[in-house]
Amino acid sequence: MGQQDLKRYKESVKEYMTDAVTNLQKYLSLQTVSAQSKAIPETVAYVVKQIEDINGETIVLDELGGNPVIYGYFAAGENGDSTKTLLFYNHYDVQPPEPLEEWDTEPFEPTIIDGKLFARGASDNKGDLMARLTAIKLLQNQDGGLPCNVKFLIEGEEEIGSPNLAPYLEKYQELFQADACIWEFGGKDEKERISMVAGIKGMAYLELTCVGADIDMHSSVGAYVDNAAWRLVQALATMKNEQNDILVEGFYDGIIEPTEEEKKVVSELPFNEEAVIDLYGLKRPLITKAKGIDPRTAMVFHPTMTICGLDSGYTGEGAKTVLPKIAKAKLDCRLVPGQDPNHILLSVKKHLEKHGFNDIEVQMINGQKAYRSNYNHPFIDHVLESAKEVYENDVILSPNAAGTGPMYIFGEHLKLPIVSTGVGWVGSKAHAPNESIRIKDFEDGIVHMAYMLNGFSSALETKVESTEVNH
Amino acid sequence: MGQQDLKRYKESVKEYMTDAVTNLQKYLSLQTVSAQSKAIPETVAYVVKQIEDINGETIVLDELGGNPVIYGYFAAGENGDSTKTLLFYNHYDVQPPEPLEEWDTEPFEPTIIDGKLFARGASDNKGDLMARLTAIKLLQNQDGGLPCNVKFLIEGEEEIGSPNLAPYLEKYQELFQADACIWEFGGKDEKERISMVAGIKGMAYLELTCVGADIDMHSSVGAYVDNAAWRLVQALATMKNEQNDILVEGFYDGIIEPTEEEKKVVSELPFNEEAVIDLYGLKRPLITKAKGIDPRTAMVFHPTMTICGLDSGYTGEGAKTVLPKIAKAKLDCRLVPGQDPNHILLSVKKHLEKHGFNDIEVQMINGQKAYRSNYNHPFIDHVLESAKEVYENDVILSPNAAGTGPMYIFGEHLKLPIVSTGVGWVGSKAHAPNESIRIKDFEDGIVHMAYMLNGFSSALETKVESTEVNH
Repeated sequence: MGQQDLKRYKESVKEYMTDAVTNLQKYLSLQTVSAQSKAIPETVAYVVKQIEDINGETIVLDELGGNPVIYGYFAAGENGDSTKTLLFYNHYDVQPPEPLEEWDTEPFEPTIIDGKLFARGASDNKGDLMARLTAIKLLQNQDGGLPCNVKFLIEGEEEIGSPNLAPYLEKYQELFQADACIWEFGGKDEKERISMVAGIKGMAYLELTCVGADIDMHSSVGAYVDNAAWRLVQALATMKNEQNDILVEGFYDGIIEPTEEEKKVVSELPFNEEAVIDLYGLKRPLITKAKGIDPRTAMVFHPTMTICGLDSGYTGEGAKTVLPKIAKAKLDCRLVPGQDPNHILLSVKKHLEKHGFNDIEVQMINGQKAYRSNYNHPFIDHVLESAKEVYENDVILSPNAAGTGPMYIFGEHLKLPIVSTGVGWVGSKAHAPNESIRIKDFEDGIVHMAYMLNGFSSALETKVESTEVNH
Repeated sequence: MGQQDLKRYKESVKEYMTDAVTNLQKYLSLQTVSAQSKAIPETVAYVVKQIEDINGETIVLDELGGNPVIYGYFAAGENGDSTKTLLFYNHYDVQPPEPLEEWDTEPFEPTIIDGKLFARGASDNKGDLMARLTAIKLLQNQDGGLPCNVKFLIEGEEEIGSPNLAPYLEKYQELFQADACIWEFGGKDEKERISMVAGIKGMAYLELTCVGADIDMHSSVGAYVDNAAWRLVQALATMKNEQNDILVEGFYDGIIEPTEEEKKVVSELPFNEEAVIDLYGLKRPLITKAKGIDPRTAMVFHPTMTICGLDSGYTGEGAKTVLPKIAKAKLDCRLVPGQDPNHILLSVKKHLEKHGFNDIEVQMINGQKAYRSNYNHPFIDHVLESAKEVYENDVILSPNAAGTGPMYIFGEHLKLPIVSTGVGWVGSKAHAPNESIRIKDFEDGIVHMAYMLNGFSSALETKVESTEVNH
């Protein structure tokens, strides 16, 4: 691994871009919305073909339920080190595209405008898979083979919380065994620095439902009939106050305090408050401001309780005078290491009972524990250092992301260091309308993955200080 | 007017039923949703044709804005009393049909099942217009002409609060002048008693909007970004408590206490709590129960504040991890005589400001005052007594409905007694999926209107005790 190889990759990648972008556009045109069970078989077939087209082996696993889990394998080339294996984790499913009217382009008609590729899933996470596969193709052609073994685990339920992934990793522990893992996502911050994470928050995604009646009623009966929407509003108001304190007893149970080192790292993460306010067009100050909390600390170390959706009665234009039979709220609690989603569910249930809201049902749609990898591992250092060279800029590494994924399952079953990096940018709008990646970032991402694989085996020879993982 | 005439009408109405039902089905197949500005011109044309087909005169008024107001006129026959005029008030618009998936039939494909006609607008209010027009046709044919003049005011914005009606009634006061008015709706209670009202509640239909950002965000930013849905929930929770007390200062200002007589009448209204719970499939006791209030009293004399709709973020199936940029609530306040919708709007705005929710915008979609006619008027007595004869059952008369309509405008400009009766039944589900009328009620309604018109002029000769109206 050296400057020469990097220079070679940076030049030769140009030859692969047309195909890579075309293949990505085809991939993005598949409406793989797992929340709506859409386009799963055709997407699986497409991913399998992409792997096999560049001589990878595949196994489609589906006997344990849920959308299929795709295993992909590329053996090290003749000059490569067949004793070392890198695992890539990706997902082929995407978030729902709604609200559709806010897209400037069609979410499933990938469109390039000013060097940006717009489509649902461009940054989360279809672009990353295509960059990684293209890096493999490049190494096969340019270097006569891969420098190590490469495995893929590509699942189809990440956006609904990977509810069926654990049994697959348990059963196929040996199949997926590797020395290290590159996680699904990542991107550049507003200063064009690649931002990586060595961990992830957990999640308890709850749906609260209040059923008041069998039918919607004329709202004139509001003088004597109880209202499911008011009940839900009153119940929610007991769970979080106007100062954004979460009031559910037991919610904070078990939280593992971050180490002094983790705290220090986080306090030094870049965070540009004005840029954030500007990016989202925020109408109010950050909620951390009134509390005197550093938003970085909140982002990495504090759990959340976010209303993701409210739905009751008539929501169209104008007035409909209805007393709704039902009201629903979707609540996303992001968890930190030590919190257990099942305990969160139980605590919310107990809280509602205690406050007299026995009529409100709580269901957990998605429960996942948080995870923090050991970010002193030489592998993580290698991914970080190779990125610095490729991108010619600082690289940011955070102990864990504010986002969530099934990293805990990998940590538990495969016991390997994990770091996440990808081809997004600060304006990628993952989970929102007008999701995009920049074509140049996509190209650089291909080069980074090729260059990182190039030096992977020798990096692992570095004395491993500690492989312990800290969940 | 006598038993002979009634007997004649009851027999001859059979001849008119096929046409009446067919015409009503055609009328109901028009998707006249005023909240969505749908099918207005074709519905106006259809109503005009129905009137003109039975030799009525029409004028379509639309120069003062809003959906057209239809004036219809039928002169008294040669043997009739041309010095007396009855005014019918109807509306040709209907509520939105949503939620569509809860209809057992298509809302705009009128379907007869077991003697019931299902369609949006069947009971509210297209069925009533067709019954009234059929009664006129019957009198023309059976009695050689009408016993008095009959006018119609048929508007197209009742379901969105008649925002443009007042100027028309002001300008065309003379055109619409009459001795008395039959209001749009009514129906039978669970004991098959016709239920009438001589007044109506007012309304302040508000939309509360909280905009937190320009775009929907990934919910992981909930650790530091404020949430429009939480803001809205917190704000609403300050407006009404868990005991259903409305906490907005000024909300109760100006309320005119009901008279002792009104209180007495209301305390004697039939109200079957179990039947109500059963009808709607209520999951919780009536909210009046915990307060020790008679639900009749609440229904007629107490204002309400009902959440008709909540909307924020992702409301589809499963999980979408989004932090919504906007949250909305639709709030229907039913008002009693003395309350002013503009004052309610102002009070809610002040309340939100006082509680620190300056970021929540309030808009009044629909503001109407309440109205109570003088229910001792001999006209009202006549409508009531004729109903007893036609339906051969008790008749219930309440000082005002729990529902709303533009009755205040009529009282103010035309100064005439008003009573409401119609062809609905206890299971009509106005404003809800599976709205229906029963064909037999429709037939009886035709007979009642014919018989009521038959005796209308002589009833007005009765000494008028008081024509004062009490707003």
